[in-house]
Amino acid sequence: MSTDTLQHWDGISVGDKLPTIKHTVTQEAINQYADASGDHNPLHIDPEFAKGTFYGRTIAHGLMTLAFVSQMMTEWDWDGWAYGGEMDMAFLSPVFPGDEVNVSAEVTTIEKRADGVHALCKLNVFVGDKTILGGTVSRLLSAADT
Amino acid sequence: MSTDTLQHWDGISVGDKLPTIKHTVTQEAINQYADASGDHNPLHIDPEFAKGTFYGRTIAHGLMTLAFVSQMMTEWDWDGWAYGGEMDMAFLSPVFPGDEVNVSAEVTTIEKRADGVHALCKLNVFVGDKTILGGTVSRLLSAADT
Repeated sequence: MSTDTLQHWDGISVGDKLPTIKHTVTQEAINQYADASGDHNPLHIDPEFAKGTFYGRTIAHGLMTLAFVSQMMTEWDWDGWAYGGEMDMAFLSPVFPGDEVNVSAEVTTIEKRADGVHALCKLNVFVGDKTILGGTVSRLLSAADT
Repeated sequence: MSTDTLQHWDGISVGDKLPTIKHTVTQEAINQYADASGDHNPLHIDPEFAKGTFYGRTIAHGLMTLAFVSQMMTEWDWDGWAYGGEMDMAFLSPVFPGDEVNVSAEVTTIEKRADGVHALCKLNVFVGDKTILGGTVSRLLSAADT
């Protein structure tokens, strides 16, 4: 079960930039995400409650930021993300209402594994110069012929 | 920068079971998630379109299932997930409207790193006997005294 690394596969190369996604997060968007996800923690949706917490204001759900990452992967290639997507990431800093989140990524490794060829991409997720999410996301470039 | 592994920390032990979460996914819930996330791919929300695709019916967004994982981690301990959460996972099978998703996990490793003590948990995410998501999620048990 060896893993080979490649520089190119099917038009994708190490160093390729993925689509860039920008979203300005609003309290309204956070409230909508709370309803959809069922996560109504007052730290997300109650500005009065949030005043008494460490950050002094509401913060977005971490998975909302991850949804922007998913949007980037979907724009790049929906099938390879939905059917062969992987992620290895950490939540590093919170996102506040009014913040503009910038999501981009770069192909760092192309791996040929037993189940197919995968493109691993280093995430760059920032608000200003603050890193929000760090890690790697990947998609399947082609499934093995089995 | 060595990493020590422990069997117990602050009341948490290797082998501990996390809270179990069950959700029956409906088309209505998928539509709501599409609005909140901005991902209106017809494969998720248009049953007529989905008839012509590989699965022949709509499928839930992968991040909706991940939101159930986040709910489990939140019930276990909100702070350590929101401020020190990590994940390393893969999407393995789709979820269809009507499916009951069962989410559970078990502490497999407690790691003392430079930034604090982390609990790594193996995910068990099933519909019936089909694995939906596989991998590891972790939370911070305590930050390093710095």
